[in-house]
Formats: sequence, structure tokens, C-alpha cells
Amino acid sequence: MVQSMPDASPAKWHLAHTTWFFETFILTEQLARYHVFNPEYRVLFNSYYKTLGSHPARQQRGTFSRPSFSNVLHYRAHVDEAIHRLLDSEPSPETLALVELGIHHEQQHQELILTDVLHAFWTQPLRPAYAAPVSEHGSPAAASRVETAPVEMPLRWIAHPGGMVEIGAPDEGFAFDNERPRHAALLLPYRLASRLATNAEYLDFIHDKGYERPELWLSDGWDMVCREGWRAPLYWERTGDGWREFNLHGLSSLDPAAPVTHVSYYEADAFARWSGARLPLESEWEQAAKDRPITGNLLESWALAARASGTSSETPSDTSSEISARAEEEQLFGDCWEWTASAYLAYPGFRPAPGAVGEYNGKFMCNQFVLRGGSFATSASHLRASYRNFFPPHVRWQFMGIRLASDER
Amino acid sequence: MVQSMPDASPAKWHLAHTTWFFETFILTEQLARYHVFNPEYRVLFNSYYKTLGSHPARQQRGTFSRPSFSNVLHYRAHVDEAIHRLLDSEPSPETLALVELGIHHEQQHQELILTDVLHAFWTQPLRPAYAAPVSEHGSPAAASRVETAPVEMPLRWIAHPGGMVEIGAPDEGFAFDNERPRHAALLLPYRLASRLATNAEYLDFIHDKGYERPELWLSDGWDMVCREGWRAPLYWERTGDGWREFNLHGLSSLDPAAPVTHVSYYEADAFARWSGARLPLESEWEQAAKDRPITGNLLESWALAARASGTSSETPSDTSSEISARAEEEQLFGDCWEWTASAYLAYPGFRPAPGAVGEYNGKFMCNQFVLRGGSFATSASHLRASYRNFFPPHVRWQFMGIRLASDER
Amino acid sequence: MVQSMPDASPAKWHLAHTTWFFETFILTEQLARYHVFNPEYRVLFNSYYKTLGSHPARQQRGTFSRPSFSNVLHYRAHVDEAIHRLLDSEPSPETLALVELGIHHEQQHQELILTDVLHAFWTQPLRPAYAAPVSEHGSPAAASRVETAPVEMPLRWIAHPGGMVEIGAPDEGFAFDNERPRHAALLLPYRLASRLATNAEYLDFIHDKGYERPELWLSDGWDMVCREGWRAPLYWERTGDGWREFNLHGLSSLDPAAPVTHVSYYEADAFARWSGARLPLESEWEQAAKDRPITGNLLESWALAARASGTSSETPSDTSSEISARAEEEQLFGDCWEWTASAYLAYPGFRPAPGAVGEYNGKFMCNQFVLRGGSFATSASHLRASYRNFFPPHVRWQFMGIRLASDER
Amino acid sequence: MVQSMPDASPAKWHLAHTTWFFETFILTEQLARYHVFNPEYRVLFNSYYKTLGSHPARQQRGTFSRPSFSNVLHYRAHVDEAIHRLLDSEPSPETLALVELGIHHEQQHQELILTDVLHAFWTQPLRPAYAAPVSEHGSPAAASRVETAPVEMPLRWIAHPGGMVEIGAPDEGFAFDNERPRHAALLLPYRLASRLATNAEYLDFIHDKGYERPELWLSDGWDMVCREGWRAPLYWERTGDGWREFNLHGLSSLDPAAPVTHVSYYEADAFARWSGARLPLESEWEQAAKDRPITGNLLESWALAARASGTSSETPSDTSSEISARAEEEQLFGDCWEWTASAYLAYPGFRPAPGAVGEYNGKFMCNQFVLRGGSFATSASHLRASYRNFFPPHVRWQFMGIRLASDER
Repeated sequence: MVQSMPDASPAKWHLAHTTWFFETFILTEQLARYHVFNPEYRVLFNSYYKTLGSHPARQQRGTFSRPSFSNVLHYRAHVDEAIHRLLDSEPSPETLALVELGIHHEQQHQELILTDVLHAFWTQPLRPAYAAPVSEHGSPAAASRVETAPVEMPLRWIAHPGGMVEIGAPDEGFAFDNERPRHAALLLPYRLASRLATNAEYLDFIHDKGYERPELWLSDGWDMVCREGWRAPLYWERTGDGWREFNLHGLSSLDPAAPVTHVSYYEADAFARWSGARLPLESEWEQAAKDRPITGNLLESWALAARASGTSSETPSDTSSEISARAEEEQLFGDCWEWTASAYLAYPGFRPAPGAVGEYNGKFMCNQFVLRGGSFATSASHLRASYRNFFPPHVRWQFMGIRLASDER
Repeated sequence: MVQSMPDASPAKWHLAHTTWFFETFILTEQLARYHVFNPEYRVLFNSYYKTLGSHPARQQRGTFSRPSFSNVLHYRAHVDEAIHRLLDSEPSPETLALVELGIHHEQQHQELILTDVLHAFWTQPLRPAYAAPVSEHGSPAAASRVETAPVEMPLRWIAHPGGMVEIGAPDEGFAFDNERPRHAALLLPYRLASRLATNAEYLDFIHDKGYERPELWLSDGWDMVCREGWRAPLYWERTGDGWREFNLHGLSSLDPAAPVTHVSYYEADAFARWSGARLPLESEWEQAAKDRPITGNLLESWALAARASGTSSETPSDTSSEISARAEEEQLFGDCWEWTASAYLAYPGFRPAPGAVGEYNGKFMCNQFVLRGGSFATSASHLRASYRNFFPPHVRWQFMGIRLASDER
Repeated sequence: MVQSMPDASPAKWHLAHTTWFFETFILTEQLARYHVFNPEYRVLFNSYYKTLGSHPARQQRGTFSRPSFSNVLHYRAHVDEAIHRLLDSEPSPETLALVELGIHHEQQHQELILTDVLHAFWTQPLRPAYAAPVSEHGSPAAASRVETAPVEMPLRWIAHPGGMVEIGAPDEGFAFDNERPRHAALLLPYRLASRLATNAEYLDFIHDKGYERPELWLSDGWDMVCREGWRAPLYWERTGDGWREFNLHGLSSLDPAAPVTHVSYYEADAFARWSGARLPLESEWEQAAKDRPITGNLLESWALAARASGTSSETPSDTSSEISARAEEEQLFGDCWEWTASAYLAYPGFRPAPGAVGEYNGKFMCNQFVLRGGSFATSASHLRASYRNFFPPHVRWQFMGIRLASDER
Repeated sequence: MVQSMPDASPAKWHLAHTTWFFETFILTEQLARYHVFNPEYRVLFNSYYKTLGSHPARQQRGTFSRPSFSNVLHYRAHVDEAIHRLLDSEPSPETLALVELGIHHEQQHQELILTDVLHAFWTQPLRPAYAAPVSEHGSPAAASRVETAPVEMPLRWIAHPGGMVEIGAPDEGFAFDNERPRHAALLLPYRLASRLATNAEYLDFIHDKGYERPELWLSDGWDMVCREGWRAPLYWERTGDGWREFNLHGLSSLDPAAPVTHVSYYEADAFARWSGARLPLESEWEQAAKDRPITGNLLESWALAARASGTSSETPSDTSSEISARAEEEQLFGDCWEWTASAYLAYPGFRPAPGAVGEYNGKFMCNQFVLRGGSFATSASHLRASYRNFFPPHVRWQFMGIRLASDER
């Protein structure tokens, strides 16, 4: 039930809200004689859909001692049963599309449960671990998995020719409205880093006084550094014998080869400038990822942390081992979301979905940046190369990291 | 576990903190071979005793998902057992005094649980009732109690001669340090209202544009009225058919004869000015109350709401029925805490208790006003005529109301 | 000396800061034996160049009672004299480029003086007018100029074919670093409104409850509307007989045919959505403007207010009257800055100028939107089709308005 | 025109507001055919008299570029002339009392001009001096005055018997309403320090980690220390060779024997606790001062800084040199205002003056503490033993210091 900051939500709320989504956008519209579980929940678990009427303020979610968790489970069972009934009734393609949207919506909240629980556990003085702690060698103590990449993979620069490319989701298949329409984009030749930036590289930035040199920072970023006293990524702590990070396995020693995580756009941008590089455009990223399989350190691997490039994953995969090894090196999908240099804006010809569900994505197209590629907390079934995640540039509590890019000269 | 505002605390926290008080101030000091339940709790459940080291920020208490409620119950059982062991070991008078202090401390938090639960329930959209709802006639629906005062008692003015009086707690017997030393005080002749100010009287103030006339208000109070948009006591709501108030019985119709509750000092002071009266000094109140029995609508009556003056109480009482009727009319004890015009300051010669427990009262002697008399949520065994409660003048979530006073002319 | 909000600066500060720019970036670097006027001013009048060391907080500028205005004039004369000496000494092309940059920098602050004075005059209770008041017919009372457009020009949609276009400033000639490098961009076919949106059109939006319908707004914009209570553009006031606006001529009746001014990006975006249109991309705007002469209601016309489309201007102009009439209708240059739907970001291959002067533009590429076209307070000699102004989306005190765009279907 | 924080006001505003006071409370009421100088000024220069209607927000005063200083001088001349006319017309005693009130009101603002100018000069980066700088030996460089107390006077404790005393201003003669009615008060035997606490003593407190020990502080005070990072009085700066303080003579070396100034109530209270003493009650102070002449380091000495106890003053004085020497040692009047332990509350039977002028004092009786004795910026003609100044406990920009007291044992 804990809400440790306004941006985070209690796990109970996430469960109730995803249930609400199915009831509100599907059942009450599409299922004849559907009995609303509790009319008060229609207001209570609305997140931000203004066209549905008033809703509780976001920061209030931690005060919902009622309904109890068991009430929410009953709510869920009630809605699940009705959805099954609906699916048995030969629903229209439009209805099925909404059910699919509801499932993807729920997958987003499943990832948010992990990000929010991590913040809540970090906030509270006792600092519990969500999962079994990881040994000093970087793997969960109880795991028998053999780690194949104890050391940092060298960083290579992958050249891309650019040119006229197609960006965005095609008309068929599931995608969020903000991934459409698919459209042409013009790219200059560019290069992408062969893997995510590592904790070791980020430590170099810190040791080179990265947090003390305003010339490396965007103006707003420098203001944050000064106001908030940022000196390292969120969840890092300096102890007597070096840096540790708090993650879902508790307070852990920092793996130098693992991707740096929990940095804001400001930090990613300053790190890139310090590196003599830049962040990629979202179109550059998508062009590089569009032919890659959706594999890597994703939720299904249950590692629950970003891992070093090249770490063998046990993700069930139909791809050949060569493809898999390449994915494990590249980290395009999984490990952590990658900040891009692209503001989150409408694609040319963008039209939000009609009705209240149109508030899902479009109304946030302002003061946010696009992130790509998913994290260790994202399900493989949820991702696509065209997938656009987005957060304001100061946000750090998501599983977000850095891939460098540069111009081809 | 809910913390609906920084001033309020979760019920689980109250339980753990009162347990912590016994462990910290008594067991670890006085009981040989006492085994601390969990060293982390010493930090976690410290409220504000700076000399014991750092403690969590007050507004963070709602995030303590750990320890669980059952852990806290184990903590309590562990401490209870040890306290019994201590009591069986022929403890010193000093130790017994600390145990008594711990009990009074816990009684304060028992009252706070009710005030904080009320705020939490009011904050959340579903607005549950803490206790069985009250019927439209003002009594709990399920109660068989006969109400004897359906109408408002007339307000009489009780004259007091003033003069040189003794104020404060005597050296013997339990009292908080801030009630001592007992000292002489000089009072001019004064008059006190025969009962608390009622909802009906406060409605007259509202209807006479009390909240729109700056000349009635202290400057800080008027700023609050403008900034917060105050138009009525906390928990009042205007509905189509008049005012209702949210209390421990849920959203209830307003009893015109019941004492107005949940007003700030600013509102109490403005109401008094509008009435052509003033608030009493704490010494005036104490002088009037010092010979009265501690009886009235207190926690033991389990009414859970302030009631009209003269309402028959079923509080077990040894006093004769005449005395009891007088107490029920006067409402000096119980119903709601009474704002006085006295700033909360040290009595002449005040010395805080030695050691960390000395932070209990003395360090709050600034920017607060004294309240007297207890409320329907205060136990009779906890009160004294010399008892000084205190809150900042803008606070409204406590069970606090108004008794008028005036100069004898 | 007034600073009416942190974003605004006193006129005295603007004068001293533009002087400081010449001294700091040119004289102390390029002029042998230059004598710094006052070493303290190097800190005092630094706006935000962090690599030059610390500087006063922005919101503190209104407290600089020292140096006096006459000291600042002496400072200016000292620097002017030295710049003349430098120009007489056969300076290098790099030095001349910095002088040109200093002049353009000063022109920006000249416009800011007018925007900041307007805000200061609006803030203070007496509400003085900066210039002679305008008569009820829309022209300055003392002016003999004949107005040729008393009524609103009809809105036409101008089709543009799109395609592969060149955007940005060429390598030669003066431009700010953020206008470069010139690069190819791909545009879909689009349409632009033939003139700016008018006060009359914006009033229709207001009357159609534009400020009360969340579905028209970006999420951040709706939050601003609710938090700030926005109900009209900044400086508009509803009086008994309709809306008036405070502008440099004082409190004036609203000219229905004049361009709506002092709206935020949020309002511009909501108005466009309500209109069934959208805001233009900056590349779309630039493509439409690149062959147009820099003429219109600019600073040189000294109208000091946005004027109705088609209003005859007396701007000295070498262009034929036909071109001039077209410019007066189109309002691409002058009247007010036009919000675009483009976030203010780096062009592909962008490199900030080397050294401290590189902080001029690049570090603000975050959470801002691009505006194009200049205003009635911009000098013609300061503008270019590639010129990129930028402000955060909530800002309204600049002379900023709306041009609609739409997709070609 | 500078307003360096909301609590301070521009000097121009002080002049206009004191003029406004005479016009508003006297001329428009009492002088037949008085012509109001400018009706807009009635709103513009109202400070906080709500019953006269709306007034500008306090923090806005620095934006009043209009009226100009010369307009304000004309306003003043207009009002001065009318007041002279009124005085020539045989005014009633009530009118004369209001004129006297207006003069005392103006004296208060004369002192505030100095406190506000000091803050403004300290805030701005150039840090000008208001008056000629003081030499390293503590006297104005240009002054020929011989300092007679280069070293710290020893601290003696003066015993007072207490008992029943009379406090407050008698009915005759000028006094503010808050000094009345004169009334009996009961004092226990007490002792007062023979002089103000010195910078040297306060440095001992700092060196003894006074600002790092929460047990010395009120809870609110400790919060301020932590939040604001207080480590010394306002205007103190630690430099390589020790502490300096910014005062009306500029940045000056700290005189160890001079009274510590610019401390909050919180600091005064913590210092007293650290000293094993307490602050005096206002009644204790008044009883000690009531028979003393109003002499000391007051405005008339034009020292413009608090001076060491025993420093020979050149204040014109009719008192004998013995009395004068005693006053110079005691510092009861002048040097700096002395925080008392008394909350600023109404005296028994207090009645505010009728009408709008009744807002002068009464409505501030909340969350403030009383200060006594005047400062080097107070005129001797303005002071009385019964004079009650008052400020909130966190305020430090006034000329406020510390006198210790203790119980007589």
C-alpha cells in the first residue's frame, strides 16, 4: 500500500487500476448486462482520464486503505470472469483490440510495480530486498547459472549508413497510437555503441568531476545537480569501501561491467558530452533495432537487474545461439531503457485513439524524452522496435540507462 | 498504515512508537540483561528525540511497510513481557515514575490514533466510518441510550472572582513536567461560559459572514482564511439540505446543540471576537476546573463525538448525580479540547526532565497555544485540571473547540 | 530598476549586461591594454555563463541599486569607446564575428526590455502606459496614420507541397549557432494559415469553454490551467463591457482583428486542437518563409503592438507594394512570435560555439519549444527565416501568438 | 527602491506610507475641504489595514517604479502643508493624539529604513556601506570620538526582588494601545545580566558547537538551523582571519566586546540555555527599566552600530554623568532590541483603538515574541520602558540581541 513519492503508486493500486481499465473501457461498453462491481471504484481507480470525470489526486493513492487488498482481489475476479464471458461471445475486432490494449496496459503497470516497489523499499529505513540477495560476484546467491562475462565487454562503434528509412509501427498488429503512423525519416550516417554504458564508465565520469563541471550539462540539468545535490545515479551510495547500489536484491556491490541504471536524461546527456559523443535519436535507435529479435535480459530471464553485456541469458528463445549472443552483447532490448535525444512528440499525421482512451499517450507530448528498448522488467511479449516509452528529463526511478551515439564523420 | 498528512501518523506507527518508548527510556536503562528486540527499531520508531540520534522524517511514517503489523505485535509482546518482569523486580520509585510516564504517553497516542484515523478516513475518497453510523437524531443507530438534551442548553456566564490563585500541578502525583512548578498567579475577575460554543452558534458566525470580515481575525488567521479558502470548520461540508460533518461515525448531519469541533485557534479567536467575548486564559480555566471531578463525555463513554451540553452520559462515576449533571452541562472535561488565549510557555522556574525524556514537552514552547480539558477521545484516567495540551494556532484536525470568556465589568 | 518576476530583468540590468557581453567576450580577449572598467561588474552582470565563474541569482537583479544608472552609462561609454578603438585596429574576421554577435545579443535584449517593462507596468497597481495610449479605434491617439484594415481578414489555407527541403542557416553570413548546420529535412504536404489567429477567434475558443475542457489540452497544460486559474491570455481583463488587454499603450480595448498575443504553448496547442488544426513544425514554417522579405509589423514600424492582418505598415521598405501587402497579410515576420510544434533541440551535427560563448544557446535544448518570425518588438535587421527563438511551454509574457497549420489531405 | 525580501520595504515606500498614514487617518477625517493628493495612493500605500479595503501584496513594494521619488516628495509636501494647516486650526485632543500617533508611526519606519537598507546592501553583490566605514578599532574612521571601552565589561548579575509590580503604560501620555491597560503582575525574584551578551560570548557558543547540539534548541529553532544552515548570526561571515560582520559601515571586523546582534529568538533562547540562564520576561525587563532614563546608544548618538557596554556616548543628555555611565554599562535602552521570553499577547483588559487604526497592533498577537529597549536606530523620543516591540521568532534582520536572566535561588 506504500506510495513513497507522488510519481510512484502502491502495488494494490496498480492491480485495481488495471482491473478498472478493463471494466471501464471494455466491459461497461461492450458486455451486455455487465454489472459494475462498485460504482465508486470508477472514480477511485481512474488514473488521469479527465473525460471520464474527476479522479483522486495522484499523490493520494497511498491513503486508500479501503478497499482492502481482498476487496481488490474480488474486484479482479469479477472483471476476469466478465472478460472471459466477453471473449466467449464472439466479440468484434474492435473489442478484441481493446482487450489487447488492456493487456499491454497491464504489462506496463507490471513493470511499474517493480520500479515503485524498489523506490518504496529504498525510501524506508529498513531497506528490505524484493528478491533474494545477490552474492558479491554479481549473481543471485541461490542461482546455479554460470556467468560467462565477468569482465567488461570492449566498446565498439557500429556504423549505420542512415538515409531514407521507415519509422513507426505498421498499420497491422498491435501498437500504441503514438507509434503511428509509420512514416519516412531521413537519417545522416551515424554510429551506435555496441553495448550500454557501464557502471565503470560512469564512475570514470564521476571521478573526472562530471558532477562539478557545468559546461557538461544542460542548463536545467545543472540546476537539478545544484538543487538536489546529485553526485551519482539514484540508489547509489558511497561506503567506506566504494560504491554500492540499492536494487531489487537489496544493497549490493556495484558491478563495474553492468549497465549504469537510474540516471536522468540530464545525466545521460552530460555523460555523453563528457564522452565526446551524444545520445541517439529515437529514429536512429529504431533503425538499428528493427531487424533484431526481441531477446535479451528481459523480464522472462527474471534476473531483476541489468547485467553486463554478453552475459548468457536463459531467456527461452527460438533464435539461434549466434543471434542470441549478439543480442546479449548489444543489449538493444532489455537491461534498461535507453534515453534518446528525441523529445516525445507526435509523428507526422498522428491521431490519438478516439474517446477517453485517446488520453492514453497523446496528451503527454510535452517536456518528455523518448526511451527505447525495454528493461529487465519488461516482458518480451510487450516490446517492439517501434515502442516509445517517455519520461521527463529529471526522472530517475525507472530502470533507465545510456547508449552512446555519434555522427559518422 | 495510512499517513494522510505529515502531522498524522499510521496506527501501526503509534503502536510501535509507544512500545519503543518503554524499551528506550526504561528497559534498556533499568532492566538487567534486557535483550533489545531489534536494534533498527530504536531509530525507526524514534519520533523526535534528537539526543538519541537521527530518526526518520515525520512525513515518512506512512512508508514503513516493514516491519509488518504482526512484527509490531511481537515487538509489543516482547516489551510487555519485559515490563512485567521489571515490575516484579522491586523497581525504584524513579523507574516506576518512568513506567507511569510511559502509560500516559501511550494514552496520548491512543487519542491520536482516533484523530489520525478520522483524518485518513476523511481524506480517502470512499470515506469509511470508524464506528457504527449515527442516526439522524444524533445517537449511534444501534444505541439504546436515551438522549436527555435534544435541544441547546442556554448559555450562562459564570462569574469568578479572580485574585491570587495557585496554578500548576503539585509536587506529588503524576503530572507532565510542563505542569510544574505550581506557582502563584494573579487573576482579574472574569466570567466563563457555562458550556462550550455550539454548532448552532458557530453557524450564526458563518451566516454573519464571519469568514469574510478581516476585522474579526488575527492577521495570520486572515492569511490562512484567504490562502486555504476556509469557510467552515474542518470536516464540515455544505450539501443541498444544509451542513454535514464527517466524524468517526461517517458523514453525519450536524447537531446544532453539539459543541463546534475542529476549529483552529484563529477561528476560535475570531468567533470569540464576533461574540463580543474572548478566549479564557489557561489560568482562568484551571482555576474554574480545579475542584471539579474528572467526569463528562470522555473516552469511557465511548460516544466518539462531542455531544450537546447536558447530554446524559453513562460514564461510570462515583460522583453524585448532581455533580454529574453539572459536569454534563459545563463540559469542562471531555467533548473537545478548549483553546485558551495563553501561549504555551514555561511556568516560572520550569525545568525539563533530565535526559532525553526532557525533550518531551519543553522544546515545543514556541508558536503554540494551550488547550485544556480533554475530549471525548481522552481517558478520564489521563486528565487533570492542570493538564496542558498544546498545538500551533492553525491546527484543526484534533478534537478542539471553543469556550468563551469575558472580563468581569 | 524593477524586476517584477524572476524571468524578467530591470532595464538597467539589460543595458549593463549587453555592455558586459562586449567587454567580456571581446575587449578583454582582443584589445591590447584594455582597462577593465570595474572587475566587480564581471561577476555582477554575468547572466548565466557558468564557465566564467559564479554569477548572481537571476531573481536578484532587481536589488542592484548599485551601480547607479549613471555608473552604467559610464560603463557603456567606456566600452563603446574601446569597441570603436578595436574596430579601428584592423580586427580579425573572428573578432568582427564576435562584435556582430554582440550586436545581435543586444538586439535580443532590446526586445526583452519591452517585454519586461510591459510585465513590470502590468504588475504595479498604477499601471502606467509605456507609450501614448491608443484610441478606441485601435491606433495611437496622436497618430495620423490611416488604418486600412478595420475588419478581420478572412482566413485562407496556403498549401505547401513539402518534400525534401533545406533547413537552417547557410555557412556564410551571421546566424546563431543553433541555426546550423543547414541540413535536409523531409516534409509531408501541409497547409499554413494565411495569417495569425486573431483575438476574435480566440474569444470564440473562450466562449466555447476552451479553458474548461480537458480533452483539448496537453496534460501539463491542463494542470497549469487548473493551478493558475487561467481563463484568458496574460494581460487580458474582463470588464463590464467586454475584454480589455494591457499592452504598451496601457489598458486598451481588445481589437478583434489583431493577433492574439501572450498565450503559452499550452494555449496555442489547445486552441489549434479546438480549431481542428495543429501548430506548424518549425521546418514547415521556415520553408514557407525562406523566400519572403523580412518585412511586416516590426520594431521599425514603432506600432508597439500586434496589428490586424493587412494593416498598412509604414516600415521603410525596398520591396514593391505588392510584396509588402502580401507580407502585411501573411504576418510571417513581425506582430508576434509564432509557437511551433517543434521542441527546441539540436540540428543534426550541431556544434556549439567554442568557449564560454558556447553557453549562449546549446545548453537550453530541453523542455522548450521553438518560436519563429519575430514580433513588433524585433528589429528587421535582427531577423532571418532560419531564426529560432525558444521558450518553455508555460511562458506567456513574451509577444507570442499562434499560426495554425494542418496536414494536406 | 530596492526590496530585498518580502519582510523589507523600499525606502521610498516607507516615506510614502508614513505620509499616507497622516492623510488617511487624520486629514481626510479631520481637515475640512482637504484635497486628497491622489486617490490611487490610498490603495497603493496601505500596508495592511484590511478595513480600508484591498492593498498591494507586501512583496510587491519593490515594483512601484511609479510614483517616482519626486512624486512622493510632492505628496509629502502636500500632506505636511495640510497637517500644519490642521494644527493651526485648534484641533481637538483626539486629533492631536492621532498626529502624535502618526509621528511615532513614522519613527518606527525611520528605524525600519535602516534595517531594510542594511539587508538590501547585504543582498546585493557590491555590498555598499551606508555610512563611512569603521576603522579596525571599531570607530568610524573619520570620527574623532575617543573610545573608552576597548575591552569587554565583566558580566554582573543584578538581583531584583520581584513581587507585585505595575506593568504597562499609564493612562496619560502617549503610548501604543498594546502597552495598556497598566496592570498588576506578580514576579518571582530574578536576576538580570548587567549588560547585553557580547560577540565574544556568542563566539564561545559557536565554538562550543552551539549550532550542532539539538538539545540546546527549541524544536522549531532546530528545524530552522537544519533547513537554513544557520551557523552564525545573520550578516556574519567567516573569512580567512576570523569572523567579520556586515553592518551599516560595510563589512567590518567583529568587535568582541560589542553586543551580538541579528540573532533570532531561537538563537537567543539556545544561547541562554547554553549559558545556564534564560531570557527575561517582558515584565521583568520593564520592572528593571522603569526608573531608568531613556539614554544610551540611541539614534541620536549616530553610531549606527551596537557598541560595547560602557562605551562613552555623546548623546545629548540632561542626566548626570553617573547616571549616564550606568546607562552606558547597562544598555537597557539602545544598542539592540532585547528578545524576551514573553509571547506577544494582549494585556488583561486590552482594547484595540477604535476604527481602522485598531489594526495597528492587536491583530499581530500570535506567534511573535516581545522585544524591549530599542536599538542604536531608535530615537530617544520614541522609547518608553513600557514599549513593546514584537517579531516572529525566526526573524533576524532587525537590530536584535540578547540579555540574559535567571531565577534568584
